[in-house]
Amino acid sequence: MTAVESREFHLAARPVGWPKPSDLALVTVTLEPGPDEALVRNTFCSVDPYMRGRMNDVRSYAPPYQLGERMYGGAIGEVVSAPDGSGLAPGDVVTHQLGWREFALGPPAAFGQVDVAPGVSLSAYLGVLGMPGLTAFVGLYDIAAIKEGDVAFVSSAAGAVGSLVGQLARMRGARKVIGSAGSREKVDVLTGELGFDAAFNYRDGDVDRLLGDVVGEGGIDVYFDNVGGDHLEAAITALNPFGRIAMCGAISQYNAESPPPGPRNLAMAVGKRLRLQGFIVSDHFGRLGDFMAEVEPAVRDGRIRYRETVVEGIENMVDALLGMLRGDNIGKMVVRVS
Amino acid sequence: MTAVESREFHLAARPVGWPKPSDLALVTVTLEPGPDEALVRNTFCSVDPYMRGRMNDVRSYAPPYQLGERMYGGAIGEVVSAPDGSGLAPGDVVTHQLGWREFALGPPAAFGQVDVAPGVSLSAYLGVLGMPGLTAFVGLYDIAAIKEGDVAFVSSAAGAVGSLVGQLARMRGARKVIGSAGSREKVDVLTGELGFDAAFNYRDGDVDRLLGDVVGEGGIDVYFDNVGGDHLEAAITALNPFGRIAMCGAISQYNAESPPPGPRNLAMAVGKRLRLQGFIVSDHFGRLGDFMAEVEPAVRDGRIRYRETVVEGIENMVDALLGMLRGDNIGKMVVRVS
Repeated sequence: MTAVESREFHLAARPVGWPKPSDLALVTVTLEPGPDEALVRNTFCSVDPYMRGRMNDVRSYAPPYQLGERMYGGAIGEVVSAPDGSGLAPGDVVTHQLGWREFALGPPAAFGQVDVAPGVSLSAYLGVLGMPGLTAFVGLYDIAAIKEGDVAFVSSAAGAVGSLVGQLARMRGARKVIGSAGSREKVDVLTGELGFDAAFNYRDGDVDRLLGDVVGEGGIDVYFDNVGGDHLEAAITALNPFGRIAMCGAISQYNAESPPPGPRNLAMAVGKRLRLQGFIVSDHFGRLGDFMAEVEPAVRDGRIRYRETVVEGIENMVDALLGMLRGDNIGKMVVRVS
Repeated sequence: MTAVESREFHLAARPVGWPKPSDLALVTVTLEPGPDEALVRNTFCSVDPYMRGRMNDVRSYAPPYQLGERMYGGAIGEVVSAPDGSGLAPGDVVTHQLGWREFALGPPAAFGQVDVAPGVSLSAYLGVLGMPGLTAFVGLYDIAAIKEGDVAFVSSAAGAVGSLVGQLARMRGARKVIGSAGSREKVDVLTGELGFDAAFNYRDGDVDRLLGDVVGEGGIDVYFDNVGGDHLEAAITALNPFGRIAMCGAISQYNAESPPPGPRNLAMAVGKRLRLQGFIVSDHFGRLGDFMAEVEPAVRDGRIRYRETVVEGIENMVDALLGMLRGDNIGKMVVRVS
């Protein structure tokens, strides 16, 4: 097997606050597949919010990136070569966790074959049909336990997870679907093509007031939290008795150097009998079959829509990550690397 | 039926911060039972943390006391007179919600007969075998879902609810039971007669550090929260993955004039997959039969112990309430009114 040259990112320094470009190094390596290894040319690499946490040297649900070592993350690509009898053949499309690089080299078991549906982009398997999609599905259905007639609110609603949360809430018979996002353009996408009933731009003022204005008298029953901070506090105030919060992330705090105050109104959870529950999608991979059975057909026939923000070139991947953390993207942010 | 004179408390003013004695008025009234009414001489009246919230004019799970009107709350007493065919007879012991007064007058259905077990005090039916006991049972079993081998932590552990939480945790096979309380004397009661494995006096310093010292490496699995504030923050730090918090109350905040900061570490709930759930005992009265079947025999045969703090005389009931809010009591605080 011929060796290939591949560029890949290594963690050069642990960021303090917002990552700087110099914290990540793009390194060229030569990869030579061993007899038991498959070689994959990555097409798209994913940038996801949880990657920021992995740059810190703290124990978390995902192990930290090691200083001076290669980074990794979700990716989709095509098999270049694979051992005989491995079940993989050149040209197969596979998803895997060996992203942040042009070529992935690993045991065949590290790669999962994808049967790409007609009319669906490859990159969708990193987004609406990938880990972010499963996150939305599990968080809304299993953690927040949404039911018909609920009023649902989701933050980061124009993001990869949030935009599916809103559409799944609608499919499950939510009475009203509300989203927040960080620009006028995103709000228009939410109430336009994504079919949210109401949305607001959280940069327009006090989140508590902005949410109150669109919620009106009825309150909310479910909050899918992607951001933490003032959104979480506003949601606790707006929640009806027996309301549920799926705590998926706290992107507003990922780059904070000291912890921000928690919700001052958390004690309301007693009187309102609220349930707040954190979750991590990797605990729920057993739901992947149910998820694909429900969501893939809906994506194929257009009942579920998705946006993507595609950054071209692995050399721009750090910018893509920073942009995603700033909220520059609409829908899933991916990087095309070949 | 002869009329009786009865003293009862009315809400004279809505407290700001800590209640003042002048906020409550002890008023003498004449009660004359109608043909369909039962008259009960109260023996013990209950003071409970939730009563402070009812003095505010805000919607909560319990409706507010009305200004100038009589107050109410849990009580136990003996039937003086009852309509024929009502199922009640003079001398019957009954519990009911017409406390804060010497005599209770109401329809027979307002009173529930109690079959007092030998060797158990009447007042126990306001505490370990009453609403606080059911609160401990439901919160620990149904909300926090304690299981064998868990490490359990409860705040206000020497109080009416907390002291049963610790003993029930032990009965359910907890690996370690930890409590916090507000005095050296209470800590000694916890680790002595109540059988806690470890306890600390939260006035001795930083709760986060005090808890960390007794928890050690293993972390905790369940936190039964009676106080909110820094205890809740410390528990979030100490909790193991998939830990559960039963949010029962936030006594540290009941007299606060402005909301204190929430837990700065709440975002940890995502990575640790924590569940925080508020609950109100009145949603769970369907569990009363299970509760009595498990706890009453254990109280009778001494496997479950209980302390009580008895204040003599209805004229001292406001002091009793304030003392309970300050934490002067060990075990259930009751007021003997006859």
